Amino acid sequence: MRKIYAIGIGAGDPEHLTVQAVDRLNRVDVFFMLDKGDAKADLVRLRQDILDRFVTRPGYRVVSAKDPDRDRTPNDYRAAVADWHQARTDVYERLLRDELADGQTGAFLVWGDPSLYDSTIALIEAVLARGNVSFDYEVVPGVSSISALVARHRTTMNQIGRAVQLTTGRRLATGWPEDADDVFVLLDAHTTFDRFVDAGLEIYWGAYVGTPDEILRSGPLDAVLAAEINSVRAEARERHGWIMDTYLLRRPA
Amino acid sequence: MRKIYAIGIGAGDPEHLTVQAVDRLNRVDVFFMLDKGDAKADLVRLRQDILDRFVTRPGYRVVSAKDPDRDRTPNDYRAAVADWHQARTDVYERLLRDELADGQTGAFLVWGDPSLYDSTIALIEAVLARGNVSFDYEVVPGVSSISALVARHRTTMNQIGRAVQLTTGRRLATGWPEDADDVFVLLDAHTTFDRFVDAGLEIYWGAYVGTPDEILRSGPLDAVLAAEINSVRAEARERHGWIMDTYLLRRPA
Repeated sequence: MRKIYAIGIGAGDPEHLTVQAVDRLNRVDVFFMLDKGDAKADLVRLRQDILDRFVTRPGYRVVSAKDPDRDRTPNDYRAAVADWHQARTDVYERLLRDELADGQTGAFLVWGDPSLYDSTIALIEAVLARGNVSFDYEVVPGVSSISALVARHRTTMNQIGRAVQLTTGRRLATGWPEDADDVFVLLDAHTTFDRFVDAGLEIYWGAYVGTPDEILRSGPLDAVLAAEINSVRAEARERHGWIMDTYLLRRPA
Repeated sequence: MRKIYAIGIGAGDPEHLTVQAVDRLNRVDVFFMLDKGDAKADLVRLRQDILDRFVTRPGYRVVSAKDPDRDRTPNDYRAAVADWHQARTDVYERLLRDELADGQTGAFLVWGDPSLYDSTIALIEAVLARGNVSFDYEVVPGVSSISALVARHRTTMNQIGRAVQLTTGRRLATGWPEDADDVFVLLDAHTTFDRFVDAGLEIYWGAYVGTPDEILRSGPLDAVLAAEINSVRAEARERHGWIMDTYLLRRPA
């Protein structure tokens, strides 16, 4: 029987790895590194740094593979997403079947927590459902990007007795969520907070949180602060070639 | 200058402590243990186990204090909550002022992640705002109870591109949140999921997650499963004298 771990490695600070994650890293024969291309080579390096620092068991292998790209300008959005999921499942299935012998243990290292806006668990389940390769798997939870963000801002996710929404930039663009006072926005490539300037909100924004390149900004969301975050964000993205950022919008109760 | 840490220690499994948390534990002179009474003595013991296992630096002190109770049947709900917050701030202020010398480091150990439905950060800020004792403080994020729950169920918080709500039992009792498909319910003493039986939802429930006493149940939320969780929950609560449980309600997209 093969064994697979989906290991949350925190949002950028290697010290956010848990004792459990370090223990599991040291049981792994093959680490699978999915790569979206050169722009995020920094992230591949950060993962390698984590292995160098925490894995004391010798003899592991690292197998890299290209994570298929999604068609960003499809005629049929749903079909394109389904095709993409299919192509990714093919890659994961091939890795688990061809790169891992029976009795061996493989792992995927997932930024933040594997349960939050990440597809690793869904892809592992999709491979299992096809039934061509059998394995057992375990999810190792990690410090999520949103926990890391609010910890650095020394604020909470929720206000007392209030609700919190986790959502995407795409969804936020359709309007403020009805029943929540604190809204975390993930996967937002378009600084959707711009739509909520001067609406009585506070913003807690962070990029590269927990790394030496961390940038934090917070305060009442007015035009000045929105413009500053846009400018800082564009400049950092240009310099690094990529950006990993998240923010909380708070409607004070 | 005094230094304070609010350290997330995960939701029950000592292995969920992060490398950063273990590092900070080993810089602490005084651990403050707030206790709600005998019923939760297990939790005090679990925290002591964490110190015994991870703190190698000798000579730390543990200072216990009684966390004031809230008036559960007040005439004026808002006034009662304000009084309670005041009484708790008094306790925290006294601990930081009288039990910590200048230059020393103190810590509060917080179950799960300090940012999620926990009052430690708010109380530290309230003490700071009074201005009677000065200190610097840092928040050390932890694996939240909801990350631990879904990891054990090997599911995700969100469905693809969908929103997630974190809310309380009290709020859920007023109805399903408008803009979310996955709803985590915390602080629910009344199994509010009972109101959503046969509404096309799935439930992922867990108690004492990550501990040897862990109980998990999941599936389509029908009357049979709701009754089973109620019965298992009541029996476990009776046996332990307390319960720490959380659940996710999912509306399949």
